[in-house]
Amino acid sequence: MTDHREPLGHATQGEAQRWVADEYYELNGTHYDILDELPTPLEFSRLVHISRPVLIKASEMPGVISLWTDEYLTRRMGDREISIAVTPTGRADAITRNRGGRLYFTEPHVDKMTIGSFLDKITLDPADATSADREVYYLQSQNGNMFTGRYFDSTSDPDSSEFEPLREDVPSEITWCSEALDRCPDAVNLWIGNSASVTSVHSDPYENIYSVVRGAKHFTLFPPTEGWCLQERSYPHARYVRSEATSRLEHIPSPPTTPEVRWSSVLDPTDSTSLPPEAHPIHITVGAGETLYLPAGWWHYVRQSEVTIAVNHWYDMESRGASWVWLNLLRGVGDPPPGNGYVEQTSHVTEGSSRCNCT
Amino acid sequence: MTDHREPLGHATQGEAQRWVADEYYELNGTHYDILDELPTPLEFSRLVHISRPVLIKASEMPGVISLWTDEYLTRRMGDREISIAVTPTGRADAITRNRGGRLYFTEPHVDKMTIGSFLDKITLDPADATSADREVYYLQSQNGNMFTGRYFDSTSDPDSSEFEPLREDVPSEITWCSEALDRCPDAVNLWIGNSASVTSVHSDPYENIYSVVRGAKHFTLFPPTEGWCLQERSYPHARYVRSEATSRLEHIPSPPTTPEVRWSSVLDPTDSTSLPPEAHPIHITVGAGETLYLPAGWWHYVRQSEVTIAVNHWYDMESRGASWVWLNLLRGVGDPPPGNGYVEQTSHVTEGSSRCNCT
Repeated sequence: MTDHREPLGHATQGEAQRWVADEYYELNGTHYDILDELPTPLEFSRLVHISRPVLIKASEMPGVISLWTDEYLTRRMGDREISIAVTPTGRADAITRNRGGRLYFTEPHVDKMTIGSFLDKITLDPADATSADREVYYLQSQNGNMFTGRYFDSTSDPDSSEFEPLREDVPSEITWCSEALDRCPDAVNLWIGNSASVTSVHSDPYENIYSVVRGAKHFTLFPPTEGWCLQERSYPHARYVRSEATSRLEHIPSPPTTPEVRWSSVLDPTDSTSLPPEAHPIHITVGAGETLYLPAGWWHYVRQSEVTIAVNHWYDMESRGASWVWLNLLRGVGDPPPGNGYVEQTSHVTEGSSRCNCT
Repeated sequence: MTDHREPLGHATQGEAQRWVADEYYELNGTHYDILDELPTPLEFSRLVHISRPVLIKASEMPGVISLWTDEYLTRRMGDREISIAVTPTGRADAITRNRGGRLYFTEPHVDKMTIGSFLDKITLDPADATSADREVYYLQSQNGNMFTGRYFDSTSDPDSSEFEPLREDVPSEITWCSEALDRCPDAVNLWIGNSASVTSVHSDPYENIYSVVRGAKHFTLFPPTEGWCLQERSYPHARYVRSEATSRLEHIPSPPTTPEVRWSSVLDPTDSTSLPPEAHPIHITVGAGETLYLPAGWWHYVRQSEVTIAVNHWYDMESRGASWVWLNLLRGVGDPPPGNGYVEQTSHVTEGSSRCNCT
């Protein structure tokens, strides 16, 4: 994507996006396929072409379901320290309001701890929690914490993982997906959290295979054609930082030179009053032993109702052909309006942050 | 597609179409893949997802190349009469100007004759041609003249073909395509013509597997994103009819109640002066023993430099997901401008003709 071309006007985009959303919904409704068995590579290739969510009542890692008890995880991982996202609210990588009322895209603080300590924190009965315990912990490092693309590249540096001892339990790739897409995963991530953690609504330019190992994930999904309903805005960046003096989390705005972040201004898309009538959310619960195919560009908001463990495999989407242009057209080209009302002209969203929300 | 929704304005469409064409070309250029062997179903499924032309240096019917001599075809078909399109110009299903200077979308006259008689006509040296011989004959009935979808449907009436004796030589389906798309062909057509016949530029909502058996087809292709460069207009319908009195072809406008036809106003897209600079034609010659994958929605203009025989397999495109909406957005929604300048309001393009140009 280069910048020498005529930008597409906001009015044009808005009108085209509404028309497309309407046509797409008319044709597809809120239907999603449910498979009883894992697909073959060919079956999955067809599903990738259709690019709608698919709930698969089977898993690539069925043995892990009974294997991964807290006791097993704690024993295997031992004293290794892992990176855990910590927030006061359970909303990491989300829009939060600071005390002054200003909205920020806020990244979590990251604490290092053993998996045993982490599992204790997220299984604590909230009634027993002290003030510090009310912080919300979520294993969501999503940087390929199990495997990165380097794992598959014999010419690169070794691919280290905080979860090295668990690697033997997790397939480095989903073979039917790798064969369908003719590529290796870009990242494989382990996610562990409880009902206090929420993933704010966003989309990724990745084909996503999401395998639940324990508990259940509750997805609220929107097709790429309804992205405009989620009202992306441009937000200043901030981060939770643990104060050395008080040990409490503080909300620290990043320097003004930090690029603003383009993010949905809809904080809870399960609340229908926060959406225009053209939005048609699809609700899918993925239980232990089940797998969700979440196609590239689909918007997703994710909760869990209990302690939930999941592994996802991210694959780069096909860049040839029209898929990338289509997603960019639907996402809207150019800077979105500021999330805090009028801001000076120097404040803008960078090209990079507007293209890839891999958080 | 229903009609209750807000139509997309012409200005919006134009701006969005230009932006999309530019982005798509930036990403894909004029590249097309060339395969040395027939693809597997999985390989072909991936190619359908990319939806760009592929030249395959192999064929599903290699034996037919040496088998289908004029002598063989004449012997097998015998006295059976087949439907042959006849025009004075070689332009069937094309925009033609009548003596009064008015432009029409004109369908050919259809004569019935034996294949021997037809082959004689198209192999005649033009220098030897009498006036009547200067008419251009083209076997292009394209109604599933070899097989229709009924052939695969055991519950329907039998699927008859003018070319019944040749059926045993032609595969009713292309297995790697049928498996990739999980469906049977909608139509299989035999095409025979010479350099005098030209197929005007148009697009079909079908995945097309085009196998050349003799001679060579010269394709000029444009991606769906450049359809707007081909300037579709709305034309009154006409037909060539052979006069009983003179035996000559006459250009007969259809009754005013006949729906107008939406068609490209670019008569020769190989002439770059007839195209805007945003158009990037791809030229592919498909020789005997080779196969072209022509994806749904791609615009194509086709010539042959000698007597050329080809068979194509049309498969319905995937209707689920976004492909259909995407093609309609690119095609432009609503009535195109009239091809003859201002015409009265009652003259319009029907929904049917705007969606499917399977001619």
